[in-house]
Amino acid sequence: MTGTSEVASGTYAIAVTVPRPFGELLAATRDALAAQGFGVLTEIDMQATLKTKLGVDIAPQVILGACQPPLAHAALQAEPSIGLLLPCNVVIRTVDSDHTRVETIDPAIMVSVTGNPDLQAVATEARTRLTAALHSLLQSPATC
Amino acid sequence: MTGTSEVASGTYAIAVTVPRPFGELLAATRDALAAQGFGVLTEIDMQATLKTKLGVDIAPQVILGACQPPLAHAALQAEPSIGLLLPCNVVIRTVDSDHTRVETIDPAIMVSVTGNPDLQAVATEARTRLTAALHSLLQSPATC
Repeated sequence: MTGTSEVASGTYAIAVTVPRPFGELLAATRDALAAQGFGVLTEIDMQATLKTKLGVDIAPQVILGACQPPLAHAALQAEPSIGLLLPCNVVIRTVDSDHTRVETIDPAIMVSVTGNPDLQAVATEARTRLTAALHSLLQSPATC
Repeated sequence: MTGTSEVASGTYAIAVTVPRPFGELLAATRDALAAQGFGVLTEIDMQATLKTKLGVDIAPQVILGACQPPLAHAALQAEPSIGLLLPCNVVIRTVDSDHTRVETIDPAIMVSVTGNPDLQAVATEARTRLTAALHSLLQSPATC
């Protein structure tokens, strides 16, 4: 489990849990990604989608698709099928009313899943930027 | 490499190459996914994105995010962070003026990446449905 004061890496996720409510941290995550050069190309409101499609209730959860265009271009040149693993997903989900978890896919899986070492430099750069974005969420006070 | 008359599996992709132009096969892929219960939640025009952001030219390529809501819900119940690997990406990309490649992520990676065997049933079901969708693209004549 991840505490509230560190960026933790698991087998496929880099994550932080932050003592801020969901909506506030969703906005802060967008800003943190932008500061690292990531545009948000897609957004899926999982709570709304599952409610609409299945009538089931889950806690607030949004999946953002984050893309840093120069890295995406480099990845495509190294591995033509890498679009299957793009953009980098960032999940913002409620832990409880006061805590929200932000997870990003660990870009290292681009190398392990494809078996293509030519993706290593791109994966390392993406990992550094996503980790920095998560660190910034721990450092910034509530602002919204 | 994949021929034009079979569905091929690689290390992380399931793919077909079809003798139909890009735009036509993009539409057919949407229909094939819908027939297997997948909604398209996201769409990224990689050609347009990289042209706008970087000024570079790549061949037409679109990434669709395909979601089968009951499977997504089951996956979330088995693995709370699985949103990092959702939705299932489907890449449609130009091979040449007469041939287009459609690739889907192999849902088996949900199990291998997470190391969670509780995702096996969901992954197998998603794999069966995505493979059927690709098969249908080989069987249907050009219609548009």
